[in-house]
Amino acid sequence: MSNPSTPLLDTVKIPADLRKLQPDQLRQLADELRAETIAAVGVTGGHLGSGLGVVELTTAIHYVFDTPNDKLVWDVGHQCYPHKILTGRRDRIRTLRQGGGLSGFTKRAESEYDPFGAAHSSTSISAALGFAVANKMQDKPGKGIAVIGDGAMSAGMAYEAMNNAREAGNRLVVILNDNDMSIAPPVGGLSAYLARLVSSREFLGLRDMAKKLARKLPRPLHKAAKKTDEFARGMATGGTLFEELGFYYVGPIDGHNLEHLIPVLENVRDAAEGPCLIHVVTQKGKGYGPAEAAADKYHGVQKFDVITGTQAKAPPGPPSYTNVFAQALIAEAQRDPRVCAITAAMPSGTGLDKFELAFPDRTFDVGIAEQHAVTFAAGLAAQGMRPFCAIYSTFLQRAYDQVVHDVAIQNLPVRFAIDRAGLVGADGSTHAGSFDVTYLASLPNFVVMAAADEAELTHMVHTCAVHDSGPIAVRYPRGNGTGVAMPEVAEALEIGKGRVVREGRQVAILSLGTRLEEAMKAADTLEAKGLSASVVDLRFAKPLDEALIRRMLTTHEVAVTIEEGSIGGLGAHVLTLASDLGLTDHGLKIRTMRLPDIFQDQDKPEQQYADARLDADAIVDTVLTALRHNSAGVEEARA
Amino acid sequence: MSNPSTPLLDTVKIPADLRKLQPDQLRQLADELRAETIAAVGVTGGHLGSGLGVVELTTAIHYVFDTPNDKLVWDVGHQCYPHKILTGRRDRIRTLRQGGGLSGFTKRAESEYDPFGAAHSSTSISAALGFAVANKMQDKPGKGIAVIGDGAMSAGMAYEAMNNAREAGNRLVVILNDNDMSIAPPVGGLSAYLARLVSSREFLGLRDMAKKLARKLPRPLHKAAKKTDEFARGMATGGTLFEELGFYYVGPIDGHNLEHLIPVLENVRDAAEGPCLIHVVTQKGKGYGPAEAAADKYHGVQKFDVITGTQAKAPPGPPSYTNVFAQALIAEAQRDPRVCAITAAMPSGTGLDKFELAFPDRTFDVGIAEQHAVTFAAGLAAQGMRPFCAIYSTFLQRAYDQVVHDVAIQNLPVRFAIDRAGLVGADGSTHAGSFDVTYLASLPNFVVMAAADEAELTHMVHTCAVHDSGPIAVRYPRGNGTGVAMPEVAEALEIGKGRVVREGRQVAILSLGTRLEEAMKAADTLEAKGLSASVVDLRFAKPLDEALIRRMLTTHEVAVTIEEGSIGGLGAHVLTLASDLGLTDHGLKIRTMRLPDIFQDQDKPEQQYADARLDADAIVDTVLTALRHNSAGVEEARA
Repeated sequence: MSNPSTPLLDTVKIPADLRKLQPDQLRQLADELRAETIAAVGVTGGHLGSGLGVVELTTAIHYVFDTPNDKLVWDVGHQCYPHKILTGRRDRIRTLRQGGGLSGFTKRAESEYDPFGAAHSSTSISAALGFAVANKMQDKPGKGIAVIGDGAMSAGMAYEAMNNAREAGNRLVVILNDNDMSIAPPVGGLSAYLARLVSSREFLGLRDMAKKLARKLPRPLHKAAKKTDEFARGMATGGTLFEELGFYYVGPIDGHNLEHLIPVLENVRDAAEGPCLIHVVTQKGKGYGPAEAAADKYHGVQKFDVITGTQAKAPPGPPSYTNVFAQALIAEAQRDPRVCAITAAMPSGTGLDKFELAFPDRTFDVGIAEQHAVTFAAGLAAQGMRPFCAIYSTFLQRAYDQVVHDVAIQNLPVRFAIDRAGLVGADGSTHAGSFDVTYLASLPNFVVMAAADEAELTHMVHTCAVHDSGPIAVRYPRGNGTGVAMPEVAEALEIGKGRVVREGRQVAILSLGTRLEEAMKAADTLEAKGLSASVVDLRFAKPLDEALIRRMLTTHEVAVTIEEGSIGGLGAHVLTLASDLGLTDHGLKIRTMRLPDIFQDQDKPEQQYADARLDADAIVDTVLTALRHNSAGVEEARA
Repeated sequence: MSNPSTPLLDTVKIPADLRKLQPDQLRQLADELRAETIAAVGVTGGHLGSGLGVVELTTAIHYVFDTPNDKLVWDVGHQCYPHKILTGRRDRIRTLRQGGGLSGFTKRAESEYDPFGAAHSSTSISAALGFAVANKMQDKPGKGIAVIGDGAMSAGMAYEAMNNAREAGNRLVVILNDNDMSIAPPVGGLSAYLARLVSSREFLGLRDMAKKLARKLPRPLHKAAKKTDEFARGMATGGTLFEELGFYYVGPIDGHNLEHLIPVLENVRDAAEGPCLIHVVTQKGKGYGPAEAAADKYHGVQKFDVITGTQAKAPPGPPSYTNVFAQALIAEAQRDPRVCAITAAMPSGTGLDKFELAFPDRTFDVGIAEQHAVTFAAGLAAQGMRPFCAIYSTFLQRAYDQVVHDVAIQNLPVRFAIDRAGLVGADGSTHAGSFDVTYLASLPNFVVMAAADEAELTHMVHTCAVHDSGPIAVRYPRGNGTGVAMPEVAEALEIGKGRVVREGRQVAILSLGTRLEEAMKAADTLEAKGLSASVVDLRFAKPLDEALIRRMLTTHEVAVTIEEGSIGGLGAHVLTLASDLGLTDHGLKIRTMRLPDIFQDQDKPEQQYADARLDADAIVDTVLTALRHNSAGVEEARA
């Protein structure tokens, strides 16, 4: 694929180079930056629409502000590809999201221009406030600048941060990147003019003076004056909510018009007052026809042909777990009017977009608001509904207290459909679903399942639906199923019972989740080496199948647990059971295979699991090493 | 102590009795309810100021709404004592917060009038919305009513819920109980009149009609009309923020004036529009002189003399862990200008009120906003400060994703001072700090410590201060230290090294945290029985002291771990290490003592730990049982 011609961009390695340009050169630079972004993502796949939407904003921010001394925090960070190109990483931009390449998000380890990494939403204002306040306390120059999307603003965390923004004074700048596709905002010359006006030093100064004066008025008059001031600005700007939270609000302005952006950013940069919120309206996918025409604005794409926009198709194969979940849940809802579903702004990622087509009145997209999602579901459950909270493993961390306090302690039958459990490939460590078994299976009242394949997932969704006595969760990975035959009828699994998939004599492999395939491969290899292996799909991390585990541990020479999760999960629970039962007292060869004690960077999932030593080869190695670990070895270890 | 005379209250067992009264009898009822609340808390101690502030509101809500069919959700629930008296629990009101008695919060298991329990803040709107929507979906009558304080409104979760309130239509009523002591609101006849006016069916209807009309106007006009409408209401009511989130705002009204409250609640009850937010202004501690006069309005009190208000003094003893932490942190801050501290609305509970007296510019109270607190701290750390986040164990759950995503993944040196770790006594299961070791020690990069006594806490605070290479946490319990001598100089502990407190030969007790005292007692008892016991204070749950643990496990006949936390914590990590090392292969007698797999109700802490089988007697039992568990026992177990 040929690269675009980018004569001006070629001269810009870092923002200092950019600042040498004349303002009237920035349009060309932005165009070249956009072309380069499109070309790069054509090669790598990734988030495209968001980056295209902020090409001008990225250019303008680095032009106006003193990065990296001013700390620029991109919320989520999936819109940062143009930013990476402008900040010394253009030479690696075609390695985005590949193993060993650039992260698809901002990342501290990559560049001083990424002062705070992200990937989860709505953290940017808190972080930028931290930078701003730290500088204030240390008498250092430098602002904190958060760029946050309108979607991310729905998370409570953003509100908590805005509520505290006063701490920073004029050192905090929040740029609200409003690309809500459901709104076609009437952004034109007038509002740009108003924005420039209200962001000017003179206007801010006037307002400040008026406020100070008003404070000296008797209280009722003061309040009236404050109201009038708010209203005046509200009429002009629409930012009443932000003003009530203590921001100077500027906007909305056209985020693709550099002639509007630059002077507003300059005014805000130089303002004595603050914190400021600049409301910028952008268009996702801007400037690339195929993206602009697509319903999702090419939010996340495969590699694609830059001319036609045609994305590489995934090879045909078994259905994704997400789709299997969606179909299974639709089947449950057809049988039971109490079944309903909640997503926190991920209808398509969780498959609930399909559920919503079938049951619009039983689908709730609450926005990026996992905390509310869980407690709302708890309320639904308390009043007789059968709610399914479909949330990625990594995002459920956002609602951990609600899971504990509102669901587990009250023993309410909220169903958790935990997608993206385990390692997730190109999204890297921030999106890995590593901890859910650990943080859920430690909770009283909880039932925690993991699906070994897509047929199991169907059964487990049904098991969730009919389990009314308390909370229950099923976890399943990103990606496609294994191609097993799908059941005609979903069955309710017996709670806390595993299944023996292969019966052997010497080696017991206890698997939770989709490592089962690797466990079976390992059993074959071991068999070829003359070692007879049992393979168990435990299905439940909690409650454990005590009888089955006891039998496996006491009738085999060596036992291995394997899971797609961190320490503290299945392996820890099996070990705890074994020691509770005294099974270790007189010798028990057992090893627990789990994710390593590091945050793994992005790569292909199979490579990540190989790196994590959680594939068939690693199982075989673990078994053989354990078998070789004789009493001499122990003596040696004790020395 | 004599009980107050309450002739009218004596006739009210449940709200249905209350509704038989005439409106002009309600004043007397409220007075009697207040007297009974004061008398009860005089006996039990507990939360007093909050309950006294809502005596009239409680009366009015139960009088106007159809509880328990209308679902009343008290936010936090610490203000629910008058509610409990009116809802069939007066006969047990003097057992509040005692073992076997009534919970100090709302609790589903206690009463159908408690449809949703609480104790953590800001969950009520989400839950009430769940009830409202479930009823709507099932075509059942009944509203969801949330009563939430202005403090609780600072949590992002409340905002997330308000953002979704439209789902419920007029089935959702939010009552904002505004008792901000820093504001003396000018609540008088006019605003009450306005509140009554704007809550009337006619007014709501007019507004609704105006809105519908406006929607048919061309877009710019529509927007202008909307603004004008908003402004008109904002001027009258001050509720612009809530209106922007989709509520009909009513208020502010005097929450102690039943003649104002009742008609407004009736209007809202009968309104076709919604959701409604009623802004009620109350006074914490209202109607009890000593409480009104106290700075904290008797937020939480010991047993006290009703006439004088004199609270029972805690017996003199060692300083509380909270105070030791505060003093230690002040010492660190005196040495190092980078040390600063963050609390989420718990300055006094965490001891940061004392820190703030010494370092006002380095203290940040962010409100009830744990998520923001943690990421804000991460930003401070990224810019060279040494921030301590002082958050109770149970509340840190609110910020779990921020701990993972913003702190652990980025390996930022945020210091976590985790108070109230382990069981907490009268506050019961919702406040227990049971899970932090499990959910933190599973995270890469984290250092997790637990203090065995107050001298250890001092060292650990210093260890936190000087540990710049990544996140570090120290947990310590509610209550007083053990009375050990305090060090002259705080030392930096070597990361990942435990200490042998007592060297023995047959039994190894590996302790984390303040169970160390019980471990020492158990060692004495074992010694008396002829068993020589080592006692180790591991200090670190992560990283583990591998060499010390290996030595203890391989040179003693039996080893026991003990911790004040759930499964998945220290014991699980020690077992995992032991199996990784192959120590179980040829026999290892090890037992892990941990919190049981239930949520324990309130009681005295020592009773809770006895119930949990985590005291000296239980250690001795565990050791002796394990020693008796011979190979015959194992054979039996295998059968």
